[in-house]
Parts: sequence; C-alpha cells; structure tokens
Amino acid sequence: MSPTSWLPIQHGSHFSIANIPFGIISTALSPTPRPSVAIGDFILDLRVFAKSDGFRALKSTTLDISVFNEKTLNKFAALGRSVHREVRKYLQSVFSENTPFPHILKDDVKLREQALLHRETAKNHVPLQIGTYTDFFAGKHHAENCGIIFRGPSNALQPNYLHLPVGYHSRASSVVVSGSPVRRPQGQILLQGSRSPILAASQRLDIETELGAFLCNSNPLGEPIDIDKADDYIFGYVLLNDWSARDIQAWEAVPLGPFNAKSFCSTISPWVVLPEALERFRCAPIPNETNLLPYLRERRTDSVFGIDLQVSIISKEGRRTVISRTRSSNLIYSFPQMIAHHTIGGCPLEVGDLLGSGTISGTQPGTLGSLLEMTQGGKKMIQLADGEERLFLEDGDTVVIEGRCDSGDQGGIVGFGECSGTIIPSIL
Amino acid sequence: MSPTSWLPIQHGSHFSIANIPFGIISTALSPTPRPSVAIGDFILDLRVFAKSDGFRALKSTTLDISVFNEKTLNKFAALGRSVHREVRKYLQSVFSENTPFPHILKDDVKLREQALLHRETAKNHVPLQIGTYTDFFAGKHHAENCGIIFRGPSNALQPNYLHLPVGYHSRASSVVVSGSPVRRPQGQILLQGSRSPILAASQRLDIETELGAFLCNSNPLGEPIDIDKADDYIFGYVLLNDWSARDIQAWEAVPLGPFNAKSFCSTISPWVVLPEALERFRCAPIPNETNLLPYLRERRTDSVFGIDLQVSIISKEGRRTVISRTRSSNLIYSFPQMIAHHTIGGCPLEVGDLLGSGTISGTQPGTLGSLLEMTQGGKKMIQLADGEERLFLEDGDTVVIEGRCDSGDQGGIVGFGECSGTIIPSIL
Repeated sequence: MSPTSWLPIQHGSHFSIANIPFGIISTALSPTPRPSVAIGDFILDLRVFAKSDGFRALKSTTLDISVFNEKTLNKFAALGRSVHREVRKYLQSVFSENTPFPHILKDDVKLREQALLHRETAKNHVPLQIGTYTDFFAGKHHAENCGIIFRGPSNALQPNYLHLPVGYHSRASSVVVSGSPVRRPQGQILLQGSRSPILAASQRLDIETELGAFLCNSNPLGEPIDIDKADDYIFGYVLLNDWSARDIQAWEAVPLGPFNAKSFCSTISPWVVLPEALERFRCAPIPNETNLLPYLRERRTDSVFGIDLQVSIISKEGRRTVISRTRSSNLIYSFPQMIAHHTIGGCPLEVGDLLGSGTISGTQPGTLGSLLEMTQGGKKMIQLADGEERLFLEDGDTVVIEGRCDSGDQGGIVGFGECSGTIIPSIL
Repeated sequence: MSPTSWLPIQHGSHFSIANIPFGIISTALSPTPRPSVAIGDFILDLRVFAKSDGFRALKSTTLDISVFNEKTLNKFAALGRSVHREVRKYLQSVFSENTPFPHILKDDVKLREQALLHRETAKNHVPLQIGTYTDFFAGKHHAENCGIIFRGPSNALQPNYLHLPVGYHSRASSVVVSGSPVRRPQGQILLQGSRSPILAASQRLDIETELGAFLCNSNPLGEPIDIDKADDYIFGYVLLNDWSARDIQAWEAVPLGPFNAKSFCSTISPWVVLPEALERFRCAPIPNETNLLPYLRERRTDSVFGIDLQVSIISKEGRRTVISRTRSSNLIYSFPQMIAHHTIGGCPLEVGDLLGSGTISGTQPGTLGSLLEMTQGGKKMIQLADGEERLFLEDGDTVVIEGRCDSGDQGGIVGFGECSGTIIPSIL
C-alpha cells in the first residue's frame, strides 16, 4: 500500500513514508526554531522548503505557507484538519519513489542540501505553545490497580469512574520535550508514623506512561463540542510521561487533587503524529458496560489506537531494561469522549491545548504503566538487567517510552520515536 | 497624605488618586483594546497618552512606552515592579492638584480631550493574557465551614491544611471580565438516592468570593521562588468570583479534584490594583499555630490586606440585597506563601499567571463567601430584600462583589470597583 521513498529509510524506522509527523527543530547553525517533518533518519526543514517554493505543486487554496515561518506549530494546527491532510499527502508524494514532482526535491540537489537534515543534528523543541494541559484518567486498568492499592479490591473504582472520563487541569508551563533533564522535585512529605511533614526530595518518583493529544481547534465559551465532531479538534498525538512524585501527592492531594506532585515536569515526544497516520491502527477501547449519557456515546466503535508502547529504564551505567510492554488501546474513554466531557459545561478549549490520556496499563505483570503499580504500591522491588532493583526512580536513571504501530502489512510503520528523560538530583 | 486631583473625583470613589489601577479598555469609536488607568469616573488612555509624549517628564531609563501599544498588560507587567511603581507615581503627580507638570495633561486641553474618557463609555477586557490560573484554598474559615458541612466538626480541616496552602490548577481560558454573562453550566449530576447520573443544568450554582493576584515575573523550571522575594512576582490584585456548580462538583471531584464544576466561568474585576496602592492596608492573616516549614515562613507579619468585601445579589427585578460583608484578611496563607509553595517543587510560574486566594469567609453569619456556607450546605434558605429566598443562584440573578480599603485617614480610598456577572439560562 504505502509507497517506498527515494530517500533511504531504514527497515523498522518509526518514520516511514506512512507517517510524516510534524515537529519544531533548530540546529547549531540555524538556531531559530522552525517547523519540520521527520522521515527516516532525516528531517525536512519546512521553513526552507516553503521559502524555496517547495509547495508550488500543491496548488492549495487554503495553505498559508507563512505558518512555516513560525516558532511553533500553532498556526499550522489552526489551519484545520483538511489542510494538515493535504500537506501530509503532498509531502508523501514528494518523498515517494515514483514522485510526480521529482523537480521539487528529489532532483533538486541544492534544495536537498539546504532543506534535508540528518535527524541527529537537530534539536527538538516543544512543538506547540501549550495553552492548557488537561490530564485524564482513562486507563481503566491503571485506575483499578491504583484503587486496589489505596482502597482494596472491593472499592477500587470510584462511583463516577464508569460514567465520565475523570480529568483535572495540570500544568502546561512545565511540559518539556524528550531529552530534557528531569529534576527530582522537593516537596512536603509526611513520613509514616509522623504527624508533621518534612521538606525533602521525593523518594517515590514515578513514571506515568500516557498518550497525549494536541488540539487544533477551539470552541467558544459556553458551547460544548459534539462528540461526533470532536475528532476535528485533534491535531495529532505524542507520547507523554507525566512524572509523578507519589509521596508529595499522597500528602497534598486532599481535597483538591494533585498539584506539586505533577507540576514539576511532564515530558512529551517531539513528533506530532497526525490522526491520518494512525487511522489504519484504530481499534476498540476497553468495553464499558455502563449506559453512558448520550453526550458521551460515540458512533464509531474503533475509537482508540493500537499503539504498542514500551517502557525502559536505562541505569546510570547504561544498562537498559524493558520494564513494560503495553498497548494504547488500554483506555476506557477515547479522546473524543474526553473532549465532549471537557466542554459539556461550556469550557472553551484552544488551539495548542494538550490532553493526556492518563496512565496506560494492562492487567498483567509486565504490562503496567507506572512503578506504583509494578511495585504494588512501593512494596515489591522490580528487577533490572544488571542485578539492580528499583521501587521508584533513582538519580541518573533514564526512562524511555517508545510507541509504534506495525500491522505487519506493507502499509509501513508509524512510530512516535522516543519520549525520554534522565533524573537529575534534587536541589536539596 | 494623598494629594487631591485637579480632576473632579467623587467623594467615596474607589479610584482616588491614591489608587491608579491598570486595565485594558476599548471604546465604540476605537475598538482596539489598550492599556489605561482609572481615576475617579475617568480613564486615562495610556496608548494615546504615551503616543502624545505624556511620559516625557518621567525621564525613565527603564520604561519602554511601546508596552502601551499592546492589547494586554503582560508586557507592561513584565517590566517589573520598579517600573510599575515609577509609572504609578508619575501618573499620580500628573493628576495631582499641584502637579509639577501642568503642561503634560492638566493644561493641555487637546490631550485631555483625546486621552481622558468617561469610564462608562469604555468597555473593559481581561487585563492580562492569563497563562495559568491556579486557585488556592487559603480561606481557613471557608475550609472549616465546608469541612463541617461535608465531614462534621471533629474532622473539618484535612490533616495537610495547616501545613501548606492547598491549591489546584484551574482553567484560564474561561476567565472573563466583570459584566460578562455567566451561562449556567450543564453537567453530570447524581440525584439523591440514584446510582446513575443525569445530564442536567446545575441546580446548585454558587459564588466564591476571592481575591486574585496577577504575576509579573517568572522563575525557571526547577528553581523555587524564595518567600522573601515572592512579593516581587506580584503585579497586582483583582476581585475574583470563582463560580462553582456544587452538584457537578460533588459527583466529579473524586479523586482528582474539581473540573467541570469550575471551568465554565470565573469572573474578575477589570482594574488591577498595584501592591503599592494596598501597602497602607496591610494587616495580619488568620494566625497559624503550626510550626511551618522554613520555606513558608515569612519575615513580615502583615502579609495580607484588609480589603472590605461586600457581596450582593440583584434579582431579575433589580432589587439588591447585600448577602455578605467580609474582609480579605480572612486568609491563613498570604500570596507570597502561595507562590513559595507553588514553586517549591520547581514549577515555573509565568508573567500573566493568575492566582486565586480561595473563598474568603468570616466566621459569623453575614460574613460568608459562598452560598454553600450561607445555606449550610443548601439546606437553609437565605432571605433577599424583596421577600424572595435563595439556596443557590437563579437565572437572572446578578452577583456583585465589591472591594475597597478606607482607613478613614486622609490617604484616600483604594477600591477595586465591581466584579459582577448575571446568570443566563443553561443551553439545555
């Protein structure tokens, strides 16, 4: 199905011609952040490409190429899904082995030299200016696993859980791109048996393996988004590690929810994968027997994606252990359901808003999305490759979340690359 | 102490020459939003004033007057407290009866005609582009009153309450300026005795009487703000009504906190009162016997302000009832304490961020900041002037929060004007 490219793309690359994800990059020689797409081990610099009239064969009436002069993808995103589709399809045809436009890039040696970069020479930036970051809790197995740890199995899910996608506002200003260091937070912690907290570096620093969605559309204050139109609001998807300090969280979160336990850092993967690239990998979410209110009922049953997720810890010494393999379909609510719920009371969403799925876990050992679950509440060590053990993260640990879709057919792999961060010591 | 002005300022005006609050206005003839200050019943249009070289006698090396060409106050705020102080003081001297600069405005009839507007002819806008809106819960009497309603008197405050300013991220995109209509939200509500929620218009729509602080400075990711420097991060203060749908909140808020119950609308007063104007009204907060962790200990004891707050309901028929008179010193944590806590884990604050104090209540009937407290959890009607009663707000009700400081000396009144909103029916 998917054509091959005249560019050499390694077998197994996350960035096949079937993908074409968008990001913001800069280079040492050209430090201004600018839009680009990833393909194989290359990046196409869209600022240079657009300036050199690379879009001349597109003949679009809706693409304003000045969006590729921006330092974020917000203006491109705001052009809407039909323009994203058109641009992605056009770039696929430009990269295609049998491109109808060989003069645009393939045979233009000078433009190739200017516009095509090796991915390793570029620095990634947070791809959109994030208005608000809302984090949901749609990973049912995660909610159950945590509920069992905190409240026991008979009472694991709260009464509202099966009726609505529980969510909360998180902190946009501390969202960083993959590769940024993650400073271990200090905060108030109540030690067991004590009645007064201490100020200390978190000793229960955790991973939350999530999928994030960036929005490309806004709704006016007071006007909910219909669930069947919610897909039009999604620009694309990234991997998300919503780092969590469990000891800070346990003390602070009553009654208004997590605050400092989460707001110190959240890491996203750099490349925004468009919904079109994931369309082939649609599948059903975790079934919900509840008779949902009509505003949450979707026409489609394949409302989530089957992205294979893998979480690894790389120790200070460089030894890597895969600690989880799970699937992004382990969600009981889809992003359209989250959007419909987020706006049902009239809350206005904005271009650049980031929604998190909540931690994605399976039901079995080896498929869990957080150390809290893997260690049964910080009680049972997990084993790493080199004989080391962990309850929670140590300074120097690098956590890498990877996500890819590979249906095994000829359609091409669609991946997210890496969402990684290394823990650096607390300032305390 | 405070001089009088050559401008006629009504006795009792919130906007005496001792105030000089900043806002963003537009007019029918000149619809582009622009910075301005309020004085008496007038507004000085700072865009026109700056363009006409009105700041020529200030001889500032740090004021970049292009900030008055902006549509928000963010760039002015970002210049820092010393510039705000300088500009406010200069404008006070320009407005002063014995101004040393009569040629600047007082005697320049043409500029007065261009730059001085009647306040009623102007439309107010949200004064800053808000990055994030964080709402705290620092009104101890409110926390206690609500705790008694929900958990009984022996367990009213949560264990963490006296150790840290509890807060949560709220929604910036639905913050509106005084005078904007407030649409009654619909949402999931669990009726008493039922196990499944319905989608319905909120029947328990409430007021939250708060003080808000806008920030004018940022801290890098990972670097906490020292409590003794936190005042430098505060641009100024506004009144805040954090409208709350209690029935939606009761169902959704476990375990991650309020979400749709709050994100439909929050109203702020239009004029940002600078800390300098409130300096004379400093006073002590509610005493806290707790041995606070050092990062929350302030040198100063007069860390809050004695702003007299008054809350009124104006019924559809136009009859006004004052339902509460309280004081903004009914807080157990100051804004510098909130800032120190917000950043202790490394969360970056940004210019334009809005912090809410939490609901401000006294201990006695007639001094409470929410209907939830006034009606003892929605059980006991409150009486309005015209024989009407309320448990919660009805469509057509206008809620007006006013705040003013008047020490009775010659220093001049410092007020906030009104923070008002009228409830319009749900879309359901």
